[in-house]
Amino acid sequence: MNTRLCKRLGIEFPLFGFSHCRDVVAEVTNAGGFGVLGAVGLTPEKLDVELRWITDRVNGKPFGIDLLIPEKMLGKEEDTTDAELRARIPAGHKAYVEGLLRRHQIDTSGLWDDDPNDRDSSIMREAGAARMLQIAFKYPIKMFVNALGVPPASIIANAHERGILVGALTGSPRHAIKHAQAGVDVLVAAGGEAGGHCGEIATIVLVPEVLQAIEGHVNIDVLAAGGIATGRQMAACMAMGAAGAWCGSVWLTTTEAETTPTVKEKMLKATSANTVRSRSRTGKPTRQLQSAWTDAWQAEGAPAPLPMPLQGLLSRPPMLKVDKLAVGGHEGAKAISSYFVGQCVGLMNEEQSTRSVVYEFKKDFYEAVERLSATLAD
Amino acid sequence: MNTRLCKRLGIEFPLFGFSHCRDVVAEVTNAGGFGVLGAVGLTPEKLDVELRWITDRVNGKPFGIDLLIPEKMLGKEEDTTDAELRARIPAGHKAYVEGLLRRHQIDTSGLWDDDPNDRDSSIMREAGAARMLQIAFKYPIKMFVNALGVPPASIIANAHERGILVGALTGSPRHAIKHAQAGVDVLVAAGGEAGGHCGEIATIVLVPEVLQAIEGHVNIDVLAAGGIATGRQMAACMAMGAAGAWCGSVWLTTTEAETTPTVKEKMLKATSANTVRSRSRTGKPTRQLQSAWTDAWQAEGAPAPLPMPLQGLLSRPPMLKVDKLAVGGHEGAKAISSYFVGQCVGLMNEEQSTRSVVYEFKKDFYEAVERLSATLAD
Repeated sequence: MNTRLCKRLGIEFPLFGFSHCRDVVAEVTNAGGFGVLGAVGLTPEKLDVELRWITDRVNGKPFGIDLLIPEKMLGKEEDTTDAELRARIPAGHKAYVEGLLRRHQIDTSGLWDDDPNDRDSSIMREAGAARMLQIAFKYPIKMFVNALGVPPASIIANAHERGILVGALTGSPRHAIKHAQAGVDVLVAAGGEAGGHCGEIATIVLVPEVLQAIEGHVNIDVLAAGGIATGRQMAACMAMGAAGAWCGSVWLTTTEAETTPTVKEKMLKATSANTVRSRSRTGKPTRQLQSAWTDAWQAEGAPAPLPMPLQGLLSRPPMLKVDKLAVGGHEGAKAISSYFVGQCVGLMNEEQSTRSVVYEFKKDFYEAVERLSATLAD
Repeated sequence: MNTRLCKRLGIEFPLFGFSHCRDVVAEVTNAGGFGVLGAVGLTPEKLDVELRWITDRVNGKPFGIDLLIPEKMLGKEEDTTDAELRARIPAGHKAYVEGLLRRHQIDTSGLWDDDPNDRDSSIMREAGAARMLQIAFKYPIKMFVNALGVPPASIIANAHERGILVGALTGSPRHAIKHAQAGVDVLVAAGGEAGGHCGEIATIVLVPEVLQAIEGHVNIDVLAAGGIATGRQMAACMAMGAAGAWCGSVWLTTTEAETTPTVKEKMLKATSANTVRSRSRTGKPTRQLQSAWTDAWQAEGAPAPLPMPLQGLLSRPPMLKVDKLAVGGHEGAKAISSYFVGQCVGLMNEEQSTRSVVYEFKKDFYEAVERLSATLAD
């Protein structure tokens, strides 16, 4: 394909593969798409390792990174440590989580002990994100994307100085205008059917509405996100004017994915009806597999989820424990086990390699173009 | 267009216009689409009048009707009158509604008095629906569509005997399979962004998932519904394999529409973020304009909405009163005023004639086909 965005980024097929798994990022890029490393779960040291690994494998082909710098977050303006934040979690919330785990035969002793290897939520603040980007800038990244809110001006300026495009996820036309005014190059219009953080406006409405909202900003490319796991859906969005598709969920059932075997199996079996939008994981609404965890936070008498980042600090230790136990076959842990995924999980029905996913996207895309053109044939 | 469905129905452009307004139905048909009269709000006598009116205006061009025969409904199996059903509405629910109206300076005296001209929910049961269809069969309708649940076998058989196609709305792949097994000809895959009764699966996921689910049923055509108000969205859905688009919302801001001036003004101003999915109007989740009415049913301490058809019987008198007062400029009534509409309300920004909407759809559709084809050009 020879679209403007393909030329801007030097890619062949405008399929953007967002993943926390470096193998997926490299494979998407190597197959002609654009891999984006989700770096929010990483320490700066680990980011360095991952970007070096990817750089060594893509032979000069382009890739990018994604951070999460929310505009509104508890403790955002303060020099707060995670230990201080953890101390703000109400005892009742911890007790509620412990009760859920115990009802599923999971031992909760030591559950809240500090993990010295754990990440630190300071990278979700501007200074922390800037530290991450200083590392990223050592590598030939072609795009930096912010997953929540308008990217800070200093970061946009820094990226542009280096010829790096700045992208931002947006769930509403109102936010799209803010991003456009801030100087963002690529808008990722993410519908409510998306996995992870999401709004409530569906992709098929959001994409044309965002395009309309930023009509005067002729240099912005809009990617469609939310519920896309096939080339025909990508074609659908490009028929509406999107410059490509941004996908996060579809990689989670690939052979390379970082998902646990339990989660992968659940995803392969799930239909689109098996996800929920819930604040139970991060404090902001995220779409994820429905499980005993999400059920518990929707049950009568459940405490309200805490604001970001407290709910994330609360949910992380039990979910790490659950993942470990589930791998060993623990039934209670399997029932609680969940992960972020979009409604397109219903279209993800077999495990395959990342490269094979990209190739199927291309084939399905071309067939969709032909199918649509054929409607006008006599 | 020369697609199978166009040939089956004798239409030029597979845009299906669902409306409670006979003028919209006739105009959609006359402009080359397929008008569908939403008959659930009508008495049998009124249906007769409306179908005669449409028949007289379309010069043999095809149109259809839509009824709502839910599979599960309180009093469905019984020979229950609306008066008996109304007696089952808890006093607390009526008091809650009265309180809301009074807080908006609306007099509630006589609010619950019987209206002799009012419709009757018996048409939502099989026998009542059959009475409606006996009338419909006097006119040259080409399709009958059921808006909730699998159409009863007797009705499918009766329609097929007369060469009338049977359609059904579906919000999930699981239901799509049930419809296919029952012998439905046209499936309307309606996403959670749709106005009126809707599920939670978004159109962009639901359409390919439904197509996959009914893969062996080669004679079924699948229409896409939910959030569609432009030709580019229709093209998007047809790129994914849909046989056309089913639209209900986009007609609500036409010059012909039955909407009150207040509702029309609200819709023209609304963005996609101004709708909510709420059980406050019919007892089942419906998407509608967010208003003081929907807010009140989500407020802390609000009673839970009643099961269908009780909530409809509860909401109808106050909403009729509100609509009348709003037309006269009553501010409190304007705040409560609402109507069913999809998220595509954000794309409905100017009042225009129904015919002009259809023509814009065609133009926008053709442009979308060209836009998508151009991505593959060198």
